[in-house]
Amino acid sequence: MLTNTKIPIAYIFRKIRVQIVYVIIIGLIVKSVAIYFIDFIPQMPIAIPAFIGTAISVLLSFNLNQSYDRWWEARKIWGAIVNDSRSLVLQLQSFVSEEKQAIIRQIALRHVAWCYSLGQNLRGLDPKKNIEDLINTEDMREMDNHSNKPLALLQMNALQIANLKKDGHLTEFYHVQLNTTLVKFSDAMGMAERIKNTIFPVTYRLFLHFMIYVFVVTLSISLGEIDSIYEIPLLVVISGCFLLLERTATHLQDPFDNRPTDTPVTAVARTIHINTCNLLKESKTPAPLNPESFYIL
Amino acid sequence: MLTNTKIPIAYIFRKIRVQIVYVIIIGLIVKSVAIYFIDFIPQMPIAIPAFIGTAISVLLSFNLNQSYDRWWEARKIWGAIVNDSRSLVLQLQSFVSEEKQAIIRQIALRHVAWCYSLGQNLRGLDPKKNIEDLINTEDMREMDNHSNKPLALLQMNALQIANLKKDGHLTEFYHVQLNTTLVKFSDAMGMAERIKNTIFPVTYRLFLHFMIYVFVVTLSISLGEIDSIYEIPLLVVISGCFLLLERTATHLQDPFDNRPTDTPVTAVARTIHINTCNLLKESKTPAPLNPESFYIL
Amino acid sequence: MLTNTKIPIAYIFRKIRVQIVYVIIIGLIVKSVAIYFIDFIPQMPIAIPAFIGTAISVLLSFNLNQSYDRWWEARKIWGAIVNDSRSLVLQLQSFVSEEKQAIIRQIALRHVAWCYSLGQNLRGLDPKKNIEDLINTEDMREMDNHSNKPLALLQMNALQIANLKKDGHLTEFYHVQLNTTLVKFSDAMGMAERIKNTIFPVTYRLFLHFMIYVFVVTLSISLGEIDSIYEIPLLVVISGCFLLLERTATHLQDPFDNRPTDTPVTAVARTIHINTCNLLKESKTPAPLNPESFYIL
Amino acid sequence: MLTNTKIPIAYIFRKIRVQIVYVIIIGLIVKSVAIYFIDFIPQMPIAIPAFIGTAISVLLSFNLNQSYDRWWEARKIWGAIVNDSRSLVLQLQSFVSEEKQAIIRQIALRHVAWCYSLGQNLRGLDPKKNIEDLINTEDMREMDNHSNKPLALLQMNALQIANLKKDGHLTEFYHVQLNTTLVKFSDAMGMAERIKNTIFPVTYRLFLHFMIYVFVVTLSISLGEIDSIYEIPLLVVISGCFLLLERTATHLQDPFDNRPTDTPVTAVARTIHINTCNLLKESKTPAPLNPESFYIL
Amino acid sequence: MLTNTKIPIAYIFRKIRVQIVYVIIIGLIVKSVAIYFIDFIPQMPIAIPAFIGTAISVLLSFNLNQSYDRWWEARKIWGAIVNDSRSLVLQLQSFVSEEKQAIIRQIALRHVAWCYSLGQNLRGLDPKKNIEDLINTEDMREMDNHSNKPLALLQMNALQIANLKKDGHLTEFYHVQLNTTLVKFSDAMGMAERIKNTIFPVTYRLFLHFMIYVFVVTLSISLGEIDSIYEIPLLVVISGCFLLLERTATHLQDPFDNRPTDTPVTAVARTIHINTCNLLKESKTPAPLNPESFYIL
Repeated sequence: MLTNTKIPIAYIFRKIRVQIVYVIIIGLIVKSVAIYFIDFIPQMPIAIPAFIGTAISVLLSFNLNQSYDRWWEARKIWGAIVNDSRSLVLQLQSFVSEEKQAIIRQIALRHVAWCYSLGQNLRGLDPKKNIEDLINTEDMREMDNHSNKPLALLQMNALQIANLKKDGHLTEFYHVQLNTTLVKFSDAMGMAERIKNTIFPVTYRLFLHFMIYVFVVTLSISLGEIDSIYEIPLLVVISGCFLLLERTATHLQDPFDNRPTDTPVTAVARTIHINTCNLLKESKTPAPLNPESFYIL
Repeated sequence: MLTNTKIPIAYIFRKIRVQIVYVIIIGLIVKSVAIYFIDFIPQMPIAIPAFIGTAISVLLSFNLNQSYDRWWEARKIWGAIVNDSRSLVLQLQSFVSEEKQAIIRQIALRHVAWCYSLGQNLRGLDPKKNIEDLINTEDMREMDNHSNKPLALLQMNALQIANLKKDGHLTEFYHVQLNTTLVKFSDAMGMAERIKNTIFPVTYRLFLHFMIYVFVVTLSISLGEIDSIYEIPLLVVISGCFLLLERTATHLQDPFDNRPTDTPVTAVARTIHINTCNLLKESKTPAPLNPESFYIL
Repeated sequence: MLTNTKIPIAYIFRKIRVQIVYVIIIGLIVKSVAIYFIDFIPQMPIAIPAFIGTAISVLLSFNLNQSYDRWWEARKIWGAIVNDSRSLVLQLQSFVSEEKQAIIRQIALRHVAWCYSLGQNLRGLDPKKNIEDLINTEDMREMDNHSNKPLALLQMNALQIANLKKDGHLTEFYHVQLNTTLVKFSDAMGMAERIKNTIFPVTYRLFLHFMIYVFVVTLSISLGEIDSIYEIPLLVVISGCFLLLERTATHLQDPFDNRPTDTPVTAVARTIHINTCNLLKESKTPAPLNPESFYIL
Repeated sequence: MLTNTKIPIAYIFRKIRVQIVYVIIIGLIVKSVAIYFIDFIPQMPIAIPAFIGTAISVLLSFNLNQSYDRWWEARKIWGAIVNDSRSLVLQLQSFVSEEKQAIIRQIALRHVAWCYSLGQNLRGLDPKKNIEDLINTEDMREMDNHSNKPLALLQMNALQIANLKKDGHLTEFYHVQLNTTLVKFSDAMGMAERIKNTIFPVTYRLFLHFMIYVFVVTLSISLGEIDSIYEIPLLVVISGCFLLLERTATHLQDPFDNRPTDTPVTAVARTIHINTCNLLKESKTPAPLNPESFYIL
Repeated sequence: MLTNTKIPIAYIFRKIRVQIVYVIIIGLIVKSVAIYFIDFIPQMPIAIPAFIGTAISVLLSFNLNQSYDRWWEARKIWGAIVNDSRSLVLQLQSFVSEEKQAIIRQIALRHVAWCYSLGQNLRGLDPKKNIEDLINTEDMREMDNHSNKPLALLQMNALQIANLKKDGHLTEFYHVQLNTTLVKFSDAMGMAERIKNTIFPVTYRLFLHFMIYVFVVTLSISLGEIDSIYEIPLLVVISGCFLLLERTATHLQDPFDNRPTDTPVTAVARTIHINTCNLLKESKTPAPLNPESFYIL
């Protein structure tokens, strides 16, 4: 997630460098053609690029809307994981017999491991990183048998809670209530994976991109005939806005791609870690994650 | 689902071949008329096609919005099926007496069969394909008595779980919790069928299509009087963008039509198959489905 | 629901016949005035109707959006009724003692009657049609004491299920689970009635309609001065698009009005009937409802 | 709620009388200035008011959208109250011992009183009106100790249901299910109060209003130079449309203000009253509420 | 929350003072350049700023939409806290043995403390303010061990309710129902924190702001050539509208920032306090919070 601190200009323009060069080249070509073949280029009414620009802004607005919704849904999912993680610890403390504090702690920390692991997995990074201190080596080995590592951790917690019931430290009814909370984690995991794995309709992006170049060409022809000193800057500024907004939309669409615009899953997992330690009254709690220069992961 | 890999140009343009030909013909007719009857064709202010173009982009944006929502809802339904399938296996393992592992396995694999069968059924393909190894011949025969094959599989699972309760391997309370999960599958199935069977308001699409041709005619008249070398290309490019976006919307509306833009139900069912095998600690798990050239079903 | 088959042109144009005549009359009046009083009519810049047209398309888009949402919500409600009806039968079969098959059948068929009756009631038709074979004469008589007939059927099912509990054929816990399903039917019924009884803000439609005529008048004045052969056709075509889209929105708003654009409640109820017969393993199942010429109710 | 019957023109124009006078005054001032100082007023390109008009329609569309959502949410809340009220009676009849019919009736009628009282309270009217026949004098007195009268009625029902449980006429499990229904009423009440008490962002409305006057001024200057006979009518008609749509939005925003555009809470409460009497098999049921001349409250 | 009473003009314009100065400076620079270098500045067609203005209004509309949704979601969360707080008291009174009134009161008032504390915490103010009379000193001390103070209060309530169960004053089933209500508070807390901690996509705001200045520059060049007396006022008025709407959006985005446009969390907590006292039949209830001059916090 980008923070409110000053975002480096370099970061912003690196995104559309190539496209801006294309726009300038198009502008220069049209200008050159205009100078040499002035009599052959008929007039392009300014209303043509103006209406194309309006159409682009309308379609871009749709694109931004849907992309924002994906990004916000991703954030909501991780927000729900925070809430349900707190509820899980409170429920374990309320429902399980008091002598089983060690097992409550084991389940709660394994759940924190699940949070870290899910975040890494969504980003395509090593899902076993950061969790060595939270689970034991047996659990670590068990994870290797699964293609979906976080699902393995979820199964371990489900089975250990089932064992608490079988050993009489949890009543059937409390067991079902805890199970409902586990189902929420299963849902959250699947929802995040859905966002990760579903590609935004590709053709839509292609056509929008194409329209921006149609706009650039028609606008440059339209401005070309009046010997305009601000033709190229104007082309670059307006098409730059469109291209940057389109890029913003594209980045919002994929919030688990290990980029500065990502949902800050590691920071959220760390918050859950701290809350869990507080609720378990642990003596040692980790420090909150600090933002990088202008973003937080 | 289209993947991010290079989409063949041929695939894109095959969709609007016929319409583009219409647009060119309209452009040529207007041009010819303009040459022979130049004095009789009055001026068409460029503001007319410009405003029609803006109106089209606004209405297209509504169309894209609703179509995207249908497509995304279809994807959400199949995402929910993934989550609930994982929860089902974990619940069976937590709730059913341990000696009944064979029945747990039978129910879990029959559920995987339900996933494959539902996907095929939605696409209008054979709902009994791919499931021979997952259910026994008795189940296969029972399916023939039902007009809705996946519903038959759901009933078998519901009744077998009820029998586990009757035989004392499941308590009443656990039974109700498992039933809640089965209700979710019934909901997901019905929701997908709703999207499949509900036709997007037909008249809306007709009027939008009609407006695009009105736009083409007015624009070609408007450009016709200035002896424009880019009249035809401009007509084709702008109306092509509109037609392609309209086609994109149409394809998103129907995500279960056995097309490259479909929701990848077979791939999702395969993921569920793999997860289920992992959770059951099966020795053999199937391989994930590989994408076709530029899409995955 | 309109099907994808060819919609008769007559059906479409019957809807806006009167308005189109108005538009032509306005166009002709302006034209006549223009011929006789040419010097007195000042110029109307084309930008005025162009911007009004854009404004109409924006406001029409809002109208279409909300209308579509109502239509889609109506379809979702009936989709939910399908899902919950299947779940109800599966729950009855799972929860009620096996010797009570006859009562399960009675409740399930009475529920099918509720589906037919609700559909008829929403459309303002006879709510006791089509259900003679599904409920007995005693139930039929009981319905007469209620102003809301489907609610009477729902109460009968609720009380009969409560009696199953009182007679010991259903445990308390299963009873509550079945009750949860009945609550869903009560919700669905009320939601459909809400859509039926809530009138879309009337003033909004009035003002939009008024703006379309303002557009027609300004456009015809604007085109009037240039002796235009396509003035009247253009007026008719553009305002016709607006009027047809506005009419589409109006029809989507009221999906229970016994019109071709209705939610196909009878067809959905028939599907439920078929599914129920399959699940009950009845020997006789009704045939699915066939679409009328170009729509299905 | 406005009904579909003919809405008096007087009702519509009373809403924007003052603003229309402002618009006419602005138009006349600009015209006078134009006549006397014709050489000093430079040209205002028509594109300026045209683009401002488009911007207003876009922003108005956002405003209408959010206002409609508030209005529709208010209607949904009252729709949910209908559904849950029916479910409440059915649950009381299913769950409470049969000999306690008198208490079931008392609770059901007190609940009807809650519906009337909530509607009155939301509108800022006397929350104790219309309910004298539904609750006894003791309940009436108890209400005086509460600042929120409907909440008092809800508490009475909750405590009486708890007493049924304490006296053994209701099992614990049924009690929890009934409590779930009461929680829904608490939610509905709070949601309606939220809509009532949350003011739509005031600055937004101010700026939009301001833009409409900017539009009027720029348009009148723009039209002023051509000695236009339709300047004033055009100004009034276009700005009138905007002002009426803005007013429509404002009225939709506040659906509990005792205005013709209100959510018809009294009529809904009456429907609940009738349904409850039918379900209780009361001999006397009240008549449905008839609409006023062109609206229903 | 801004109230409907007259908002001071000073409050509104303080927000965009700096930007308005920038706009005037740009206008004056362009004017000066136009006077001295009149022959070198080519014509800027008015269609360029007009279309940029339209594009800004479309993108602003998206921005307002999403910002409004955040603001409304924040208000919904606090509305849900009101509802669930009322339900909590009613459930405690219905479920806990009557002799434990003192503990019911202690839990209910601690919950009110949680409401105040959460509001303060979200605004970055002292989370221990206003709650001295509601919880005892032991609770106060316990809060110091937690980094998230409201979470500490929630844990205390969860554990005290669990103790009521352990001591036999609450049955298991009622316990689970109360726990469900506590889970809702955990959810509401996390959801509000999510809105507080998630920064609206920064780049989007930057690009929109940039486009407004591009609009100002192009419009001032476009108007500059005609020696216009209303160039500067027009620039200020139109860009002022855009800047104010953009600022409105920005303020709606962050509803927990201790500003007049905040969600009125303190006032809502006070309402909960009053309702709780009424339901507990306390002899003393606090007065409702009065609005500041033109807003309420």
